[in-house]
Amino acid sequence: MPLITLLTDFGQESVFPAAMKGVILGLCPEARIVDITHAVPEHDIVAGSYALYAVHDRFPAGTIHVAVVDPGVGTVRRILAVEMEGRVYLVPDNGLMSFILKASAPDRVFAVENRRLMASHISPTFHGRDVFAPVAAHLASGTAIEEVGPRVHSIVRLDISSPRRTEDGIAGEIIAVDRFGNLVTNVPESMLPPEGPMRAAMALRISGTTIEGLHRTYAEVPLGRLVNYIGSAGLLEIGRNRASARDVLGAGVGHPLKIVFGAQHGG
Amino acid sequence: MPLITLLTDFGQESVFPAAMKGVILGLCPEARIVDITHAVPEHDIVAGSYALYAVHDRFPAGTIHVAVVDPGVGTVRRILAVEMEGRVYLVPDNGLMSFILKASAPDRVFAVENRRLMASHISPTFHGRDVFAPVAAHLASGTAIEEVGPRVHSIVRLDISSPRRTEDGIAGEIIAVDRFGNLVTNVPESMLPPEGPMRAAMALRISGTTIEGLHRTYAEVPLGRLVNYIGSAGLLEIGRNRASARDVLGAGVGHPLKIVFGAQHGG
Amino acid sequence: MPLITLLTDFGQESVFPAAMKGVILGLCPEARIVDITHAVPEHDIVAGSYALYAVHDRFPAGTIHVAVVDPGVGTVRRILAVEMEGRVYLVPDNGLMSFILKASAPDRVFAVENRRLMASHISPTFHGRDVFAPVAAHLASGTAIEEVGPRVHSIVRLDISSPRRTEDGIAGEIIAVDRFGNLVTNVPESMLPPEGPMRAAMALRISGTTIEGLHRTYAEVPLGRLVNYIGSAGLLEIGRNRASARDVLGAGVGHPLKIVFGAQHGG
Repeated sequence: MPLITLLTDFGQESVFPAAMKGVILGLCPEARIVDITHAVPEHDIVAGSYALYAVHDRFPAGTIHVAVVDPGVGTVRRILAVEMEGRVYLVPDNGLMSFILKASAPDRVFAVENRRLMASHISPTFHGRDVFAPVAAHLASGTAIEEVGPRVHSIVRLDISSPRRTEDGIAGEIIAVDRFGNLVTNVPESMLPPEGPMRAAMALRISGTTIEGLHRTYAEVPLGRLVNYIGSAGLLEIGRNRASARDVLGAGVGHPLKIVFGAQHGG
Repeated sequence: MPLITLLTDFGQESVFPAAMKGVILGLCPEARIVDITHAVPEHDIVAGSYALYAVHDRFPAGTIHVAVVDPGVGTVRRILAVEMEGRVYLVPDNGLMSFILKASAPDRVFAVENRRLMASHISPTFHGRDVFAPVAAHLASGTAIEEVGPRVHSIVRLDISSPRRTEDGIAGEIIAVDRFGNLVTNVPESMLPPEGPMRAAMALRISGTTIEGLHRTYAEVPLGRLVNYIGSAGLLEIGRNRASARDVLGAGVGHPLKIVFGAQHGG
Repeated sequence: MPLITLLTDFGQESVFPAAMKGVILGLCPEARIVDITHAVPEHDIVAGSYALYAVHDRFPAGTIHVAVVDPGVGTVRRILAVEMEGRVYLVPDNGLMSFILKASAPDRVFAVENRRLMASHISPTFHGRDVFAPVAAHLASGTAIEEVGPRVHSIVRLDISSPRRTEDGIAGEIIAVDRFGNLVTNVPESMLPPEGPMRAAMALRISGTTIEGLHRTYAEVPLGRLVNYIGSAGLLEIGRNRASARDVLGAGVGHPLKIVFGAQHGG
């Protein structure tokens, strides 16, 4: 039972993802299709890259992830089939894999060029329907990845900011915000001190506010209080118990923050 | 072919439901998954409870309904597996079952505690992915409900207002509003007089407006006119023909209303 | 593996589509269901008709398209099962098929009247759940289309404006706008001159602006520049490279435009 996911910036209300599904199911009737999201902001490759990163490895081996945030559609930008840890990623070569590639290296990368795996007529503005969907369906039906085109050895990577160690802590930034107003930072749990008094005594400074300590979940602090915790993607997040951290901090993607360690800041 | 539904307050645009689906399909590839909605207002247990109530019994026996509106995620609140009329409901024990429980009694209730049915690492802020999804997948794969944990004999119920009979009619309130601006009341058809002159002569008073009679559907009244009718959930609703009752009445969830019977109010 | 699509104006956040899916899967567990969209503006039959037209023929033969934009629900308007090019369309007879019928003629049309294929209790305000869904499920399970009701020989068609030739070109209008602000016109590629200097020298006038030439895709013009191209539905569209044509032109559905041919306008 082949599994194909779709992630685009077409909009949740768009009919375009349905056109892709019609094409896929026409070629591979037994495919199961899961929408990751179609609400990536238009042309926002960084946001699309983070969205894909946040869920990609929850899908079983064999999954084909199709991600189309593609402002260069119809131009000479390549389309890639990236093989990695048993999954395949069909993406325009514009940086959409950047977040994933910070964590893992691809096994093999192919340029999608085999015209016989695509629609007979290709709309220059809708490769999602005429290239990505049929290629995904063929891969789901058993076509070997080697058949999509030649092997290549480069992928476009965006310059995504990494957190860096400072004299007394870490300098990072916000990379995503969820519906609840929780702010996801680019600081992985692995950069924090091990569990214990040092970690408990951390303080995070953002927008002139200091948030002390590290909790397990929102509800461990009083209603409306800001709270640091390790989010479900393994990254440090800032939330508020039953309220929006974004609203009170006025911080969004790209906003800088500092983490300091030391008893003088502790709770 | 096991059937699992998902209802959350993660937002329609969120990638979190996809993470749940990846986990489910990894454990139970033959599961079919239906989204009920992910647009429950954040932390709004009452709205989530009504949304689940509105559709739960349209799904066949064997369906596993997974509902995650869970502001207490990661705290000591229990997670329940509720068996009722051949379906299973996986819910935090916070009142999400309230509307359904006003209509029916559960057959058996279990506390979900069996760690072996959950993810090996559980994020304290995303039990949807790490507890609800894998437990649902195991149940869908044939694990007996008795294996999720001990049987329990209580469920949290919210104090959802019931309509009450008054000297000359019924006092009720609005419990939901749909996209068309139709207002759903908490008054079931069974509280109204049987079909006939008495029912036809009812009048509903809300926001200083009186709406007379009871019609079958919107289009039975002139364009723009307010209309009382029995909605698809078996509850009295207030609509307008091709327009929004909410907009003209300025009424939302919790707004009170009165129904009076008697010829002097009839059409 | 029967395939059923759903298109409604219930709203993306609505639980009503899930009720339809529960009914379908209860009657036909092996059906696969694809959402086309539920975000058609309320009661907007023209928009619904275009949305269905934009994707319907991407689905394989055998697909059952269920489209419910139905302001007359519960009244005497007919429900039709339209057979066309191997697909079936279940629609209220209110014009929803108009765009499709401009391009193709139906093979056979039936009025849906067979009460045994519907729910035992039919809500007058939710035929989607109680009529369309069960009839679609029965058709998907192998019930012959002749069993839904008598054959009929008329369909309601809306007066959708067609482009017309003028002395020096074409007069058309905007019929749809997508999330990116691309404006879809009602001018099919077949009305334009064949590829060559004549086509390259076309100019499109809308909202006091002239857009010259015809390109393959957005990215062939500088960032922010307006561009004419043939869209993925085979219709002339107006876009902007990485920006919204709608925003700069202030044009929406119904807005008129003119196309002129002749070297004096060429790029």
